[in-house]
Amino acid sequence: LTQPPPWGINTNIRLTLPVVCFVWQIAMIILFGVFIRYDEESDTHWVETKAHENITSDIENDFYFRYPSFQDVHVMIFVGFGFLMTFLKRYSFGAVGFNFLIASFGLQWALLMQGWFHSLDPHTGKIYIGVESLINADFCVAGCLIAYGAVLGKVSPVQLLVMTLFGITLFAVEEYIILNLLHARDAGGSMVIHTFGGYYGLAITWVLYRPNLHQSKRMQGSVYHSDAFAMIGTLFLWMFWPSFNSAITDHGDGQHRAAINTYLCLASTVLTTVAISSLSQKTGKLDMVHIQNSTLAGGVALGTAAEFMISPYGALIVGFFCGIISTMGYIFISPFLEKTLKIQDTCGIHNLHAMPGVIGGIVGAITAAAASESVYGKQGLINTFDFTGDFKDRSVLTQGGYQAAGMCVSIVFGVVGGAIVGSILKLPIWGDPADENCFDDEVYWEVREPATHHLLFTIQPLGGAIVFDLVSRDELQSTFERYI
Amino acid sequence: LTQPPPWGINTNIRLTLPVVCFVWQIAMIILFGVFIRYDEESDTHWVETKAHENITSDIENDFYFRYPSFQDVHVMIFVGFGFLMTFLKRYSFGAVGFNFLIASFGLQWALLMQGWFHSLDPHTGKIYIGVESLINADFCVAGCLIAYGAVLGKVSPVQLLVMTLFGITLFAVEEYIILNLLHARDAGGSMVIHTFGGYYGLAITWVLYRPNLHQSKRMQGSVYHSDAFAMIGTLFLWMFWPSFNSAITDHGDGQHRAAINTYLCLASTVLTTVAISSLSQKTGKLDMVHIQNSTLAGGVALGTAAEFMISPYGALIVGFFCGIISTMGYIFISPFLEKTLKIQDTCGIHNLHAMPGVIGGIVGAITAAAASESVYGKQGLINTFDFTGDFKDRSVLTQGGYQAAGMCVSIVFGVVGGAIVGSILKLPIWGDPADENCFDDEVYWEVREPATHHLLFTIQPLGGAIVFDLVSRDELQSTFERYI
Amino acid sequence: LTQPPPWGINTNIRLTLPVVCFVWQIAMIILFGVFIRYDEESDTHWVETKAHENITSDIENDFYFRYPSFQDVHVMIFVGFGFLMTFLKRYSFGAVGFNFLIASFGLQWALLMQGWFHSLDPHTGKIYIGVESLINADFCVAGCLIAYGAVLGKVSPVQLLVMTLFGITLFAVEEYIILNLLHARDAGGSMVIHTFGGYYGLAITWVLYRPNLHQSKRMQGSVYHSDAFAMIGTLFLWMFWPSFNSAITDHGDGQHRAAINTYLCLASTVLTTVAISSLSQKTGKLDMVHIQNSTLAGGVALGTAAEFMISPYGALIVGFFCGIISTMGYIFISPFLEKTLKIQDTCGIHNLHAMPGVIGGIVGAITAAAASESVYGKQGLINTFDFTGDFKDRSVLTQGGYQAAGMCVSIVFGVVGGAIVGSILKLPIWGDPADENCFDDEVYWEVREPATHHLLFTIQPLGGAIVFDLVSRDELQSTFERYI
Repeated sequence: LTQPPPWGINTNIRLTLPVVCFVWQIAMIILFGVFIRYDEESDTHWVETKAHENITSDIENDFYFRYPSFQDVHVMIFVGFGFLMTFLKRYSFGAVGFNFLIASFGLQWALLMQGWFHSLDPHTGKIYIGVESLINADFCVAGCLIAYGAVLGKVSPVQLLVMTLFGITLFAVEEYIILNLLHARDAGGSMVIHTFGGYYGLAITWVLYRPNLHQSKRMQGSVYHSDAFAMIGTLFLWMFWPSFNSAITDHGDGQHRAAINTYLCLASTVLTTVAISSLSQKTGKLDMVHIQNSTLAGGVALGTAAEFMISPYGALIVGFFCGIISTMGYIFISPFLEKTLKIQDTCGIHNLHAMPGVIGGIVGAITAAAASESVYGKQGLINTFDFTGDFKDRSVLTQGGYQAAGMCVSIVFGVVGGAIVGSILKLPIWGDPADENCFDDEVYWEVREPATHHLLFTIQPLGGAIVFDLVSRDELQSTFERYI
Repeated sequence: LTQPPPWGINTNIRLTLPVVCFVWQIAMIILFGVFIRYDEESDTHWVETKAHENITSDIENDFYFRYPSFQDVHVMIFVGFGFLMTFLKRYSFGAVGFNFLIASFGLQWALLMQGWFHSLDPHTGKIYIGVESLINADFCVAGCLIAYGAVLGKVSPVQLLVMTLFGITLFAVEEYIILNLLHARDAGGSMVIHTFGGYYGLAITWVLYRPNLHQSKRMQGSVYHSDAFAMIGTLFLWMFWPSFNSAITDHGDGQHRAAINTYLCLASTVLTTVAISSLSQKTGKLDMVHIQNSTLAGGVALGTAAEFMISPYGALIVGFFCGIISTMGYIFISPFLEKTLKIQDTCGIHNLHAMPGVIGGIVGAITAAAASESVYGKQGLINTFDFTGDFKDRSVLTQGGYQAAGMCVSIVFGVVGGAIVGSILKLPIWGDPADENCFDDEVYWEVREPATHHLLFTIQPLGGAIVFDLVSRDELQSTFERYI
Repeated sequence: LTQPPPWGINTNIRLTLPVVCFVWQIAMIILFGVFIRYDEESDTHWVETKAHENITSDIENDFYFRYPSFQDVHVMIFVGFGFLMTFLKRYSFGAVGFNFLIASFGLQWALLMQGWFHSLDPHTGKIYIGVESLINADFCVAGCLIAYGAVLGKVSPVQLLVMTLFGITLFAVEEYIILNLLHARDAGGSMVIHTFGGYYGLAITWVLYRPNLHQSKRMQGSVYHSDAFAMIGTLFLWMFWPSFNSAITDHGDGQHRAAINTYLCLASTVLTTVAISSLSQKTGKLDMVHIQNSTLAGGVALGTAAEFMISPYGALIVGFFCGIISTMGYIFISPFLEKTLKIQDTCGIHNLHAMPGVIGGIVGAITAAAASESVYGKQGLINTFDFTGDFKDRSVLTQGGYQAAGMCVSIVFGVVGGAIVGSILKLPIWGDPADENCFDDEVYWEVREPATHHLLFTIQPLGGAIVFDLVSRDELQSTFERYI
């Protein structure tokens, strides 16, 4: 009988985790008290706003335009990302639980950071929030959850919280540069969410490289039921991605078109993912890793262009290539990254987020540059690219250039930010697991049942056998000692 | 080899369960035939109503204000409550299945009971239902599902149906007293749903106390996968709680604000739950029981005040304390309740519903009493507290008092009602399981695979071993007899 | 130790599956390029449409009437149908994964087929799509997913894609005949979706009859966790069925009423399903097969009449009988179909879709024939049955006749179409599994963990025992060879 694994003081987070949670949550309360207020559509003065702005019906409240999309996005963040990461045989608690923790902190910090950069009222010094703020906060959190995928199973919850604190901060800055300064469009976040989040996570895991990770090889990979759980995550992400890409686009045709484009693009991705996955095996068998992940690449890649007039067949084409490229990423690029570049990417976020995000940025730049009044209509073009105010004379070609510039910004923020944050996370104070204990929930969770079952037999002189029920490790130990 | 457990005639529900289902369902059909009709927004005469009331668009139909929230609430009732209770290692069928059964009956009975008390037309003698009625019926059912949590695994489905019949009845009465007579506000039901449901369940399980419940200790607690299933329930409750608390609040800012407040409050709860859970273990490990349950306490506690101008930081503060108190409840209070007060509370509803519900009532009373025209605006104050008709001169202080009175009513109805219903359920006619068979699906469900796997070896003279696949109990028995 | 199963060249789909996926997806892109465009509500010209049609608010865009329902339907298609079929002990990947694949292809083909038949603009030769088109495409896919239920575990993914290609094609034709030529009403698709899909699948599985299917008996049936997974599917179907039946009904009261009727009908079905299930066992135990499936029959049966003034108690009555009939179908009719008619129906779609679909068609015909101006109002009657244009003089009695005719059309299309498609699928080129390998994910999926666990003991001379962890089949083999 093997001894229980010798993890000890180093993964003890009994001091750090509660302190971080308490202090940061109290800081949130204070900062919210100073800065955050209801906006005019969620304040009881809405009745006066309505009268003042000649709004005839409560249904004009932005709540009714965006709340269904918000709830879909919310499900993607907590169930989608959470369960997608449960594929490991013994890391479901960490996948769902830590995802839950960092998203809950992150959305609060995001409301502040995004508020300061995007909607701080210069007169009152307050940030006014409504349903669109909640969606943006969830979006912001998505960037950090993507990064979590790269380090899944190899870090402590305290490290994850630190990673989230800096991740949200960097996100708000790059988002401000891309959307406000460069005036690039990125409603579904191919650049600001996926490209940034992907490279942020990859840079962190590169800094945190573990040469002896093979010592926990027994815990890597999936078991049958964990793959089924992961499909819950995959499907809720896949189904609700049209809501994700349309959640903050323009009222009316903007939301409508973004949903249609994403729906079509994702359908196309599924077919090419299946094709490549089947091609990759001698007998054409499918691999759940590909089905769970690459089927989603189309949604990532349409994040920028979903609201554009990319046209239905254009959406299908994007999905077509994303399914191929992402699946090939899992087959060829991930092993290369691990062996050659020393990037250990647990969930393959390079193939699901970083690379499709870059594709999305390029698609967005090209389709923006190719936009024309004949397709969009005069007012449609203005509305779609928000060619108003300082930007009313911008040409579509210039817009295409700024879209491409935006993509570079998101990559730079991801790589540089991730490298710096990775160095901070390398300090030996965060309680991360030893190489041989990675990917194991027993490090940070009370697991009532051991990872493997044991069965004890005592052999009777006459060749009979006594059968015991499957027992836990502790019960086994004591029975063992009693009988043998 | 142990004998199959000796449950017998006493858990046979082949007569009672079908009879109750048939008779009650037929009664529902008759009562619906006599009383229930479509309201003017779901009737084909809507086209005339529109013309008559100068409604310009179909989008003004209440359906479009409330249906998305309704569907979220519906998911909470059936998937949320159902899967939350699947944490036990061998009671998933009972958790999800009986939840399904009693909710399906309960919502019909609730439509009638709530209709009689709240919306019976005095001229026609009919109850007119629309989407808001469906939401209220689901809310009413929630009270009984909370109570189910206390007795999970220890009662028969017939007992659950009886508990639901009386629970819905009591609910409708206390709701009428609190909302109509006392004119208290309680949109998300801290008092009418959670406090009532919590104490109702606790009183029932107190009456049904089983001194020898330790005999089924082997079936208590979770296994790894059952905890993962329970997180599905937790997350769908957590994500959709903003819809729950905003589902029947005022159109426009009311729904908008309630959703924002609940969203923030729940995020805050997660951090303090994690902090206390980690503090409670020697090495700071987290406990899934806390993560599954206490993270939801903030939603319960904001049920009353969600539509008030509690302000974003106020919502965070409520969540902050609820996470602490609820988690401490699981650590300290539940063992005390069980040992000292003889209250066996399977799911810990005291910590998730009863106690946070009371907190919610208090928060509601205080925030109501502290409301002011300067914060709410004149019309906003009237709208929020519905200071119209008989109540147009009520002051906010008086309102605070009536809120507190409402909370007392819900406690009294829960405790007294639960004690009486518990006594009825104690009659030896309901087919409840023996102490040693509690928490086991095999009592009421055809389980094709036994709870534990067995493996048979026959020992060859030369020391070899023959390996069999894992087999069911029956197969094992016969193989055993053949070989040994 | 048994040898690994001898499947070989015949289930190799490494050529056929990728070829079909690539070629069909490219065909979709070309056809979309030629035919599919955004409709006026999802096009950037919406701003001009609004001005032109005096639409005052973006909220009048059909997106806001139908998108929440669309997302619910989308969840039913991918999570509902997918997880409902995970009940088999070792076919979760195939259930969820192939469901994912064929739905993703099917919805693209459905947009084209339905577009050509229903919305091809004669002047431009284009099909204009919006959110209602997406819902209809999902509906169309549902018919094929129903058929998948009959052949679950017995066909290859290539066969499924072929089945879907023809299924969608047949669907679009029968739908055109029923809805346009006969002008029958069928908003929730009792006839066009469920009856057609049910008989289509039954006819296919009848042609593909496997006399030696008992050779894979060990893989049939469920295990405990697979039943819990299946309940995820059941509940998401059950909860969102009100959205399914109301998704494309008239704005306003039409959607409102359809949702209420379906909600009530399904609640009633649960009680009678439980009653009959309990009656069917000696000790009144419940059977998960019934709870997972028959509880949904009410939604199927109200597909046609959901938008009619069937009245709340009428909906309860339909649900009452559907629960009884469907559960009895599982108990009595399925064994009869298999033994006598040689129809092997893995999921029992006869009891969940075909039979309740026919009931739904009959209920629709009767309630249509019984409609009256006194109940509906003059304009309400016209709106509900769309008595406009060529059909403005049709009487309700005539309408009832055409409804009945529609049902016959759907049966004929299902049976004849299924028989023909079944014959095509019988060709020995599709890589379907051998009789002994049915219902096993290892045929088409890389399964990292074997289906059964093994435990190896070596017996020490002195009667001691060495305990190994549970190991995979391969590890076992090598250990076995080493020790014994």
